Amino acid sequence: MSYKYAYNTRDTKFILKEWLPTEEVLAYDRYKDYWGIEDLDVVIDQVRKIAEEVIAPTAEDGETFGVQFKDGQAYIPPSFHKVYRFLQDQGWGTSNYGHQTEGALPLTVINMLVEIMSAANPAFMPYLTTGQGVVDIIQDFGSQELQDKFLPKLLDGTWGGTMSITEPSSGSDAGDMQSRAFPTDDPRIFNIVGQKIFITCGDRDDVENIIHMYLARVEGAAPGTKGLSLFVVPKYWVNEDGSYSPNDVQCIGVEHKMGLKGSSTAQLVVGENKGCRGWIVGNPPDENGVGQGMMQMFNMMNEARLDTGRLSTAVTANAYWNAKDYGKERVQGRPLTNPKVGRVTINQHEDVKRMYMVNKATTEACRALLAKCYYYSDVKAYDPDPDRRKWARNKLDMLTPLCKAYPSDEGWGLIAESLQSYGGYGYCEEYPAANAARDVKIWSIWEGTNYIQSLDLIGRKWTQGKGAHFASTLKEVEDFIAAHKDNWPGWELELNHLEKALNAYREIQMTVLGFMKTGQAGLMGLYARRILTATAQLYCGYLLLDQAVIAAKRMQELGEDHFDYNFYLGKTLSARYYLRSIVPYVWYTADLIKIADRTAIDAPVEVFDY
Amino acid sequence: MSYKYAYNTRDTKFILKEWLPTEEVLAYDRYKDYWGIEDLDVVIDQVRKIAEEVIAPTAEDGETFGVQFKDGQAYIPPSFHKVYRFLQDQGWGTSNYGHQTEGALPLTVINMLVEIMSAANPAFMPYLTTGQGVVDIIQDFGSQELQDKFLPKLLDGTWGGTMSITEPSSGSDAGDMQSRAFPTDDPRIFNIVGQKIFITCGDRDDVENIIHMYLARVEGAAPGTKGLSLFVVPKYWVNEDGSYSPNDVQCIGVEHKMGLKGSSTAQLVVGENKGCRGWIVGNPPDENGVGQGMMQMFNMMNEARLDTGRLSTAVTANAYWNAKDYGKERVQGRPLTNPKVGRVTINQHEDVKRMYMVNKATTEACRALLAKCYYYSDVKAYDPDPDRRKWARNKLDMLTPLCKAYPSDEGWGLIAESLQSYGGYGYCEEYPAANAARDVKIWSIWEGTNYIQSLDLIGRKWTQGKGAHFASTLKEVEDFIAAHKDNWPGWELELNHLEKALNAYREIQMTVLGFMKTGQAGLMGLYARRILTATAQLYCGYLLLDQAVIAAKRMQELGEDHFDYNFYLGKTLSARYYLRSIVPYVWYTADLIKIADRTAIDAPVEVFDY
Repeated sequence: MSYKYAYNTRDTKFILKEWLPTEEVLAYDRYKDYWGIEDLDVVIDQVRKIAEEVIAPTAEDGETFGVQFKDGQAYIPPSFHKVYRFLQDQGWGTSNYGHQTEGALPLTVINMLVEIMSAANPAFMPYLTTGQGVVDIIQDFGSQELQDKFLPKLLDGTWGGTMSITEPSSGSDAGDMQSRAFPTDDPRIFNIVGQKIFITCGDRDDVENIIHMYLARVEGAAPGTKGLSLFVVPKYWVNEDGSYSPNDVQCIGVEHKMGLKGSSTAQLVVGENKGCRGWIVGNPPDENGVGQGMMQMFNMMNEARLDTGRLSTAVTANAYWNAKDYGKERVQGRPLTNPKVGRVTINQHEDVKRMYMVNKATTEACRALLAKCYYYSDVKAYDPDPDRRKWARNKLDMLTPLCKAYPSDEGWGLIAESLQSYGGYGYCEEYPAANAARDVKIWSIWEGTNYIQSLDLIGRKWTQGKGAHFASTLKEVEDFIAAHKDNWPGWELELNHLEKALNAYREIQMTVLGFMKTGQAGLMGLYARRILTATAQLYCGYLLLDQAVIAAKRMQELGEDHFDYNFYLGKTLSARYYLRSIVPYVWYTADLIKIADRTAIDAPVEVFDY
Repeated sequence: MSYKYAYNTRDTKFILKEWLPTEEVLAYDRYKDYWGIEDLDVVIDQVRKIAEEVIAPTAEDGETFGVQFKDGQAYIPPSFHKVYRFLQDQGWGTSNYGHQTEGALPLTVINMLVEIMSAANPAFMPYLTTGQGVVDIIQDFGSQELQDKFLPKLLDGTWGGTMSITEPSSGSDAGDMQSRAFPTDDPRIFNIVGQKIFITCGDRDDVENIIHMYLARVEGAAPGTKGLSLFVVPKYWVNEDGSYSPNDVQCIGVEHKMGLKGSSTAQLVVGENKGCRGWIVGNPPDENGVGQGMMQMFNMMNEARLDTGRLSTAVTANAYWNAKDYGKERVQGRPLTNPKVGRVTINQHEDVKRMYMVNKATTEACRALLAKCYYYSDVKAYDPDPDRRKWARNKLDMLTPLCKAYPSDEGWGLIAESLQSYGGYGYCEEYPAANAARDVKIWSIWEGTNYIQSLDLIGRKWTQGKGAHFASTLKEVEDFIAAHKDNWPGWELELNHLEKALNAYREIQMTVLGFMKTGQAGLMGLYARRILTATAQLYCGYLLLDQAVIAAKRMQELGEDHFDYNFYLGKTLSARYYLRSIVPYVWYTADLIKIADRTAIDAPVEVFDY
């Protein structure tokens, strides 16, 4: 068994019950009759149990069975079918995302629970979660007819869903896609012709139908992303009586991937026999040829971006927890500080403790960042005050690129540290680290590469609302520092570092402004990914300190002998380590960017032949 | 085909013909009758051709056939047998490492050639190279009898060899190994009992015999590494008449690895039936129970450490060259600096050029570092002046941990950048990046983990010869700065950075000295790996600038229209990028270490449960 589930839910409970204002969310009309804060422990424990006992045992099938393609059909591991049905039936699946589902869990809660499940079999998770984005689009933008036709079976998991954007000739560059839509006599329905690749869950054999949210350009519409429209393209056309007819959606193959082998990544050809129809979502392109597709799809894409960060966090944390379990048993060497004690378990070695600490602190940082966004999702959707809803939407917009890119960038290095801590065993597939490393790499690429996220952050989010939204995100950090600076003994260094990082970050912004003013947009592109990382480091530094305020208080209340003391101590150590050993990279980045090294961008491409 | 060979040998030629004092080596008695500088182009071109046409086509067999274990025997891909025999017969193998082989290539040259071959099929390479270390040990420490008995068939590749150190209970901690040696009536021969794991080429079916260099403790010898002795333990005992008898060396399995699947990683049990004999190398333990084994084995291990850095460099460079080939063809998006030009090949995008540049500069840095060591190996072995030999040995000692750890640490991140540049295709096994990523990870672990290398650097190399040897390595950098500081127009910033980094590095040393003086050896351990990286960044910064001096001169001589101009331009850009964008991390590291964040090492291990 290469896959091992080692998840600890204590931080999840801390986040939901002690850190986030979850009570505020639970009091919304949407939830107040169903859930109270006292239910959360039971729900979390239940999901942890399901993850370990139901989901995790299927992970190995993803590696061995993989996804098999035969006669135009993708086959996923048979054990995945059962788990999928079980989770949908037991209420842990798509139904939670229906605006009207009775007893749905708050978004803040279900999204935290999905992290716990994700670590148990990351290749399986997209089968469970991709329907949710389709539900959201149809709920938010679909006609009553579309809602009636598609929502019920999406919500109960009878049908799956996909986000169909990427094409062979256009990945990061969606505006250049070739898929076309042609009007029919029925204004609701278009004929669709095109080809899509890298479609997660694009074909599978465990659901009756697959509802593709398909981006295409209505013939004659404007070029670029603005000319795109979004279509509901079912694998099988759903007739009035509920029966299915073929809809000329062909799966022509699946990818053979480095990891996530049980996850179906399909190549689709639609309308090759002129037989594919799709329902347009919202209105057709206006008189200027401007469609609504990209705006609608962003709804789904933003959720997929949070999902990506969550998968990365889950897999990285699971690899770390497996590593520290191994480190308790494995005896090797003597500690530098006190060699005379003789041989010790490796979790007592300085470098191994460093590997654990950087994993612990960073995965907690990522989890906090994501959790904050889940909370904003609830406020955005269900707060009675429209200003609060708007406030939450803006917050969410600012943090989404960080949520997608930071965990998926860091995961690669962090899992390498977990793997390294095993010594040679880490490289063997019998141990869980290698599998995690293979899995995590895709997440820096899909749903918009991390460079796209960086450009989104700097080019769009920094300036959105004339810069007011991003400024208010930085203001949070500033306010936190002001609130604690002179009245939190023992944390002076950490607060000082946060302040230094905030100032450095503002320097980064000035430096980039200088690039733009002097026609050097290329330098912005060159440093974009590092700026995104610095942004996440600054903001996560604040989040971990915010958590440490609570944890430090609890430590005092409980005393050293309490069984929960080490958890709270660990929270404070995560914050200290992050602020002392990671946040300094914000000012290093500020310094590096000022060097404004144009070498790479000025280099003629010919030099790269050598 | 997931594996693709894309090697460019121009930098190899530059290093051998323009940068290193190869002429000095070629003038040694050992070589002067066989090779001249004018032969090098032909030799390099020939090896490049063999790598592409003979070696590379077998790489995929490593992935598909892997290493199969059946009835106590490891089977390697059949195509590997042929390539092995071809290379040994054609003179590209072990014979070059014999002190007396006629016409052997200089170490400086053959070692550069092996890099070119390594990129073609890294899983194959250990079959070719592990015999070399056995040859060295037997030449340097073996009796005439051992030399006569074992060298001829090792040198012609009839027999393979291994370094047998690691055991189930002792990896990084060799001193705790359990293997035992018991005297027999013949003082030359011991009975051996023990178990070894992770033995590269520990079993294979393409050679007649395998000569294990086996570390064990003679019964009653001192504990720890100092009590170990080294034994020649053949898989099959070689009788006086040259025939073979079983020697109770059993292969009980091979590892299933994340990458390098065609490379045999064997578990061995020896003497389980009391039938294993080994020849002791050198003398048995002295009256204090001190053996010579570890000192002898270090000979082989140091070479294996250079091999490791070379494999990492080769695989990383090959991944980069594949990526840049892909980037010439793939059209996607518009450049930030001039979007109006329309869609462009991705090699014109800022972030992609950054990915290429960091790969190009760092792999050239690693190649330069390794090449310098190959040159020192020749001086150490064959210079007529004993002082020069000693000087070279000291230099080699200082740089070996850097050669092992820096390329293998950086490879993981660099290949991730190459992989990222493909977009989704990078994650598909049909493209070469995923394979390279899976291959490279082991090299930060084997032959002494990179933490072990770091402790070797700081604990041993900094202080060796009362600190004089390492000081002389830093002096090289200082002298270079002094020689060029005021007379190299256009390179002021780079020289300034190198000087700033050198000063920062001395601060790092002072900070670590402070740790040790205050009983905080743990902090040294905590920062050790980052200090090793900073050491490599400083030293490689100097090496790349040293190369740039030559390249800048050639550019002036040749002019822009010369076909080789872009190569030299690229060399200068590598140096500029490295000095402007990578070397600053030396002073960032100095700053970070001064923070002396004890959080990770002071943390009770219990906090890592969360």
